[in-house]
Amino acid sequence: MDRTIDFYWDFGSPASYLAHTRLPAIAAAAGATLVSHPMLLGGVFQATGNRSPIEVPAKGRYVLADLQRFARRDGAPFAMNPHFPINTLVLMRGAVGLQMRGDARFGAWVDAVFRAIWVEGRPMGEPAEVATVLAAVGIGPDEFAALVGDAAVKDELKRRTQAAVGRGVFGAPTVFVGDEMFWGQDRLDWVAAALR
Amino acid sequence: MDRTIDFYWDFGSPASYLAHTRLPAIAAAAGATLVSHPMLLGGVFQATGNRSPIEVPAKGRYVLADLQRFARRDGAPFAMNPHFPINTLVLMRGAVGLQMRGDARFGAWVDAVFRAIWVEGRPMGEPAEVATVLAAVGIGPDEFAALVGDAAVKDELKRRTQAAVGRGVFGAPTVFVGDEMFWGQDRLDWVAAALR
Repeated sequence: MDRTIDFYWDFGSPASYLAHTRLPAIAAAAGATLVSHPMLLGGVFQATGNRSPIEVPAKGRYVLADLQRFARRDGAPFAMNPHFPINTLVLMRGAVGLQMRGDARFGAWVDAVFRAIWVEGRPMGEPAEVATVLAAVGIGPDEFAALVGDAAVKDELKRRTQAAVGRGVFGAPTVFVGDEMFWGQDRLDWVAAALR
Repeated sequence: MDRTIDFYWDFGSPASYLAHTRLPAIAAAAGATLVSHPMLLGGVFQATGNRSPIEVPAKGRYVLADLQRFARRDGAPFAMNPHFPINTLVLMRGAVGLQMRGDARFGAWVDAVFRAIWVEGRPMGEPAEVATVLAAVGIGPDEFAALVGDAAVKDELKRRTQAAVGRGVFGAPTVFVGDEMFWGQDRLDWVAAALR
């Protein structure tokens, strides 16, 4: 029995947000370790030839209604972001940078950005909005600018994204339990079952 | 409470086959009427801009493994067809033609073709294979040629496909319970819940 859940995600994916809200409880119930793998979904799409469901209008409309069904069922606060799609490059560099440095604010940053985008509907592509979230989690604007401008952080996000693609990832969220792959917030019951 | 399940499908879709195996029991348990809506998935893709998951290789590999998980869970016999993708135009014309004429062999034809493709792995794009299935359900080759060559049957399949797109369909299987839409074999538990 593998006791690790590998969770690949991007802030810009509403299904990643829903998985983010449920996975800690699933890991806790199974006594499993939840490992967070930030990646750039745009890079995954480019590498695999996949694309966002919103590029097919009928599919985009359905997927939104479907995400809302899952949010209601699970009691997760959720609202489609009116500024979607949001360029998450800087936000994801922040996540990877904090994580690779072992910074204790990584978890707070991830929670706060997911909430700002998928609960509060904020335009997180705008620097002023990002600054407000940074302040709330105790990261100074200059510190953040240095972090996301660091070539090692930029390279690490690319490396992580390539590693995800190398493992078979083509979308987000993707979860692995050992070698078994699960794509989508709608496979979390399968993830829980795989841990039993 | 709406007591009708509208089921949109194409023989060429393995997920449609899996839905076909489960929906009769779901309808029976709910006391609901299952209405079969044959459509041409290729036409739906063309109209909506959607495409098959196999066009993204990493997604195609995942989707196949995922379908096999559902088949195992549900005890449905299933094997990926080595001749996939199969051009289903003539097969779907046969289904629509039998249905529009109120022919009692409609159900047997649908069962037999789904089984030939997704259980027996047969090359159902080849006329000789089609002839074998026709014989098994008591349809003569000349009768079938006249049916699928009938302009009214051809038009009806086009009309049905356009009607599906007009209702919001972008893939297969798609199920409606009243106005609520569900896409994929992985939403059948939601379909059952919507009927309760």
